[in-house]
Amino acid sequence: MELIKELPEVFEEFAEQRQKSFMAMKGLKDQGVPVVGAYCTYFPAEIARAMGAVTVGLCSVSDETIPDAEKDLPKNLCPLIKSSYGFAKTDKCPFFYFSDVVVGETTCDGKKKMYEYMSDFKDVFVMELPNTQSEMALQLWKSELIRFKKYLEKKFDVEITDEAVSEAVKEENKVRKAMKELYHVMTLDPAPIKGGDLFKVLYGSGFKFDRKAIPAEIEAMREKIEKEYEEGKRLDKMPRILITGCPIGGATEKVIRAVEDNGGVVVAFENCNGAKSFDKLVDEENPDVYDALARRYLNIGCSVMTPNPNRLDLLDRLIDEFKVDGVVEMTLQACHTYNVESLSIRKFVNEKKGIPYINVETDYSQADIGQLNTRIAAFIEML
Amino acid sequence: MELIKELPEVFEEFAEQRQKSFMAMKGLKDQGVPVVGAYCTYFPAEIARAMGAVTVGLCSVSDETIPDAEKDLPKNLCPLIKSSYGFAKTDKCPFFYFSDVVVGETTCDGKKKMYEYMSDFKDVFVMELPNTQSEMALQLWKSELIRFKKYLEKKFDVEITDEAVSEAVKEENKVRKAMKELYHVMTLDPAPIKGGDLFKVLYGSGFKFDRKAIPAEIEAMREKIEKEYEEGKRLDKMPRILITGCPIGGATEKVIRAVEDNGGVVVAFENCNGAKSFDKLVDEENPDVYDALARRYLNIGCSVMTPNPNRLDLLDRLIDEFKVDGVVEMTLQACHTYNVESLSIRKFVNEKKGIPYINVETDYSQADIGQLNTRIAAFIEML
Repeated sequence: MELIKELPEVFEEFAEQRQKSFMAMKGLKDQGVPVVGAYCTYFPAEIARAMGAVTVGLCSVSDETIPDAEKDLPKNLCPLIKSSYGFAKTDKCPFFYFSDVVVGETTCDGKKKMYEYMSDFKDVFVMELPNTQSEMALQLWKSELIRFKKYLEKKFDVEITDEAVSEAVKEENKVRKAMKELYHVMTLDPAPIKGGDLFKVLYGSGFKFDRKAIPAEIEAMREKIEKEYEEGKRLDKMPRILITGCPIGGATEKVIRAVEDNGGVVVAFENCNGAKSFDKLVDEENPDVYDALARRYLNIGCSVMTPNPNRLDLLDRLIDEFKVDGVVEMTLQACHTYNVESLSIRKFVNEKKGIPYINVETDYSQADIGQLNTRIAAFIEML
Repeated sequence: MELIKELPEVFEEFAEQRQKSFMAMKGLKDQGVPVVGAYCTYFPAEIARAMGAVTVGLCSVSDETIPDAEKDLPKNLCPLIKSSYGFAKTDKCPFFYFSDVVVGETTCDGKKKMYEYMSDFKDVFVMELPNTQSEMALQLWKSELIRFKKYLEKKFDVEITDEAVSEAVKEENKVRKAMKELYHVMTLDPAPIKGGDLFKVLYGSGFKFDRKAIPAEIEAMREKIEKEYEEGKRLDKMPRILITGCPIGGATEKVIRAVEDNGGVVVAFENCNGAKSFDKLVDEENPDVYDALARRYLNIGCSVMTPNPNRLDLLDRLIDEFKVDGVVEMTLQACHTYNVESLSIRKFVNEKKGIPYINVETDYSQADIGQLNTRIAAFIEML
């Protein structure tokens, strides 16, 4: 596949993908395709896709509906949870509206309790995600995956065969490989493109419902980036930043802009829409596909796990591979697990990796943009 | 057993029990008795007691050490977690100092992540408490109980037989029965004693290490209360309050005082030091003692569970049995699970039980006492 359009145009298309897919989803619904909505990287999408469903990440990245959410939820709760609930309750999220079922997980205190209220007005299936990655926790999680499968079979009156799940696994693994190869262009130094442009693709690709079409498109993009790089099209040399922490997207893209408007380039995203989602494949050789899925998803290095060695492992590799000069952690206000874990991330980055680290705690408002710019500009200047 | 001392004197003795037991614990340590410290009602103390250990609730109820904790932990975290960590880190808690091992559970986001840091300077055994009360969750929790037993056996080079655990279960069940009968004196209307005095006993009894001695002492106290009540010694008739919500004790006893200084009487405590700890026995007829323990502890109606029907069940019974006129919920700042759940508690109390409800969110400072008094006085006046 050859990419005919120019890269900036392609990046913008991905940036608009979420909006565009509202209509695509309506079309799919009209054809009778089941829609399964979710909020989290732990959601094992392959199981739903195995029955031909479309899966979609539900609205949770704007502060628009937070005042409505705060009628039911405490003000002192992370904006992602309040936004999710607010969009659901006010029915302002087309994806939520079209979802036949919403899948939640017991990831964190706020989410698991919020889903209880969401269940009052929507079909919500909550999966019990354990707190650790022990062998017993794995068995619990695997049984939850199977419970989810059985739930879908009953609700939609279908059979979900292991073969179909394996096919969905292979399909999504191809997406992961393509995305991983794409973001690996940022190992080039100087960087070939802006982190903000890469992010548009990472984020927008989640809203492409034709998963089969993604790998070729992403590969073509990567080839074009590499070809243009060879031809000399590249950014100036500048401090190379890795962003880690809470899920990023929508309102919090202000952090990416604060880096790139102040002389840095984001070369790696460890967050949920970045490496955390694509780094590890599901093991296609495992004859028990639910075991394979359970292992892959449970091993995600999110701060909800205790302990959480896989986050350090991923950060360790990314910092080396992407020749990172400094780490910016973005934590959302009142997200206890990421906020508590930030101390150990700081220590790891400073002491084990020997590079600077800064933590910016923020919410979905744009009120702190001035302060963000000041702090991050000072951080980058120091590198 | 006849209670010779006067009741006010006995209540004060219980109030001072915690302080007094510092020296008692030192004596036990000198005799080589193992000490197991814990923070939570989910801690299955019977397993540790079965090997002859003393178990103790660790310091977590004063704001004294919070500034020290905030050097490592986020400011926006519940005061109980910050206080626990602060006492541990500054070594200002004698019980922590004497503990050979500290047992934590993955109850909430803040605690589970805090224990990671506590492990840097203390032997901490973290048990994975599931997020639900499903059958698979029960199996996980049971396996954690057995893992705890094996850990103790190895660490202390002892054998913990099922018989010894069963004995410890019977012993603690007797304590639970005695405590439950004691607090049932508050079903009398008008109430026989102040809720603040009852609380001293509920709280102080946790620091009596000779568990065998407790039932007779508590029964004698109850008999004395009932006898004096018969003789006409009772409080005036006044609005009867149930307190629910986060663990209460130490700094947060200000809420009890705010009720009883403003014309109300606290007739029931649903919190961790109250009915939640004593209401349900461990099933002595279950031939598998770990299964019995796992069921009893997992079924505690704490807001960390999703869903949490057992809290509503307990509240339902307490409100009826204790002829409650109004419910005061005390939530700690940044305790997400209790703060989110408060909406459903309010609805349950107002709509299902038809009585008023007020939520007071507080921390360990005494700065809000004026406001607390104003709000609670207005609430009681309305009853």
